[in-house]
Amino acid sequence: MILINGDVADGIPPLDRGVAYGDGLFETVTVINGKPALWDYHTDRLLAGCRRLGIHFTDRKILEAELQSSLDKSDKQLVKIIITRGGGPRGYKADYSIPPTRIIIRTDFPSSRSGFSHTGIRVRLCDTRLAVQPLLAGLKHLNRLEQILARNEWDDDNIQEGLMLDNDGRVIECISSNVFFVDDNTLITPAIDHCGVEGVQRRHIINTACRLKLPLSIRAIMLEEAMGFDEMFVTNSLIGIWPVKELMGKKLFIGSTTRKLQSLLYSP
Amino acid sequence: MILINGDVADGIPPLDRGVAYGDGLFETVTVINGKPALWDYHTDRLLAGCRRLGIHFTDRKILEAELQSSLDKSDKQLVKIIITRGGGPRGYKADYSIPPTRIIIRTDFPSSRSGFSHTGIRVRLCDTRLAVQPLLAGLKHLNRLEQILARNEWDDDNIQEGLMLDNDGRVIECISSNVFFVDDNTLITPAIDHCGVEGVQRRHIINTACRLKLPLSIRAIMLEEAMGFDEMFVTNSLIGIWPVKELMGKKLFIGSTTRKLQSLLYSP
Repeated sequence: MILINGDVADGIPPLDRGVAYGDGLFETVTVINGKPALWDYHTDRLLAGCRRLGIHFTDRKILEAELQSSLDKSDKQLVKIIITRGGGPRGYKADYSIPPTRIIIRTDFPSSRSGFSHTGIRVRLCDTRLAVQPLLAGLKHLNRLEQILARNEWDDDNIQEGLMLDNDGRVIECISSNVFFVDDNTLITPAIDHCGVEGVQRRHIINTACRLKLPLSIRAIMLEEAMGFDEMFVTNSLIGIWPVKELMGKKLFIGSTTRKLQSLLYSP
Repeated sequence: MILINGDVADGIPPLDRGVAYGDGLFETVTVINGKPALWDYHTDRLLAGCRRLGIHFTDRKILEAELQSSLDKSDKQLVKIIITRGGGPRGYKADYSIPPTRIIIRTDFPSSRSGFSHTGIRVRLCDTRLAVQPLLAGLKHLNRLEQILARNEWDDDNIQEGLMLDNDGRVIECISSNVFFVDDNTLITPAIDHCGVEGVQRRHIINTACRLKLPLSIRAIMLEEAMGFDEMFVTNSLIGIWPVKELMGKKLFIGSTTRKLQSLLYSP
């Protein structure tokens, strides 16, 4: 089911700035037994993104109501929420008299890949680099051509994710997920201040690590350093945590930190 | 009038990748007496963009036919063409079995600003920098959040354009137009290999300069150097050539090279 501004719809106005410029943000929310997982984190990020882009949208409640009205009876489903700056005249200048557009897209939960939580995945290195743009860093915005170029670099189902560096060679994230490493019992994850997406599962893991008093380091990581770590996992709202069993051909160990976090967090 | 894949439509499928990811390209074509100006240049750029993004679209003829069928009887009108990778399943991976989406949007020609061709415009410096991304440089793609942030930095109608630098401090372009400088009878324009859009009017001016044997330099330009030039203009398909009469508060001279190029090229 698709709702646009609360009404069942089958089309987005072609002059909407979401289409014209990617002028908006999105969230992909896993819903379990009618309850959207990590809802506060999703809406925190979405509203923070709206503030940073100057999109005047603040209403969490209407989003929750519309999400609920889009659901069917399935135990697990996926709801994508898109907020755009709305329709508008030609040109980049925002017209603040025009309200933002809310798009709610409910789909079935994809089930075929759930075994990776147990077995781990293989990760390659992408040639496509992330451009350094601090003004957009952290946001889950609708400008995703870099991810598309990166994901279309390979067509081998034996490799599940691609690691992305920024233009300066720093490890930032995987194409659709954030990355964590474990070294000497310390959890390490790249800082997302130059580029990349601040995932809600990443935030959840960081908060969980703090609660558990697990040593945690959020900082710049160069590829050479990352290759020296022997435990790694990727994470997003859809997959939960997937251990990495192989990075760029190097075998990795699925360790107790990864397994412990998997046992504590939601993992589909 | 709006056509989607040749049919009159009022909505874009919400699962289209143009909405989801800005996964596509666009052109804004000025049509005069039923003839699209610089049509070959527009379609060259659009098809080159499709090749670089891996969007399998090559059919200029269908675009021209659909553009023609969208027109009304106006002497001057504007047609925006959007090509997206099409609908598709969730996720960044392209599904090449799904055809691209063609969107044709005809609008009236905006008329209120035509005096600037004569009087010149004021240009400010944007705080928003363009991220360096050679894989997307030159393309008129649908990921335009940087331009939106830049254009919304000011709200003063006395300033018509904003100059954008890249992260390394090079002058690249204005928000909606390319820039040219004149120094010692040489036409100078920034190289568009790190970021920025290769405008069709820019290409037209470069070709015209070559035909006229006007000295021409396409290269990196730092802001300090640009501030030393005393003639400048901006250009795009909609405005033709607008002289710059003031850059960051510094008065500029509207010189003979600018006026000569204006007299030779289409200028609305």
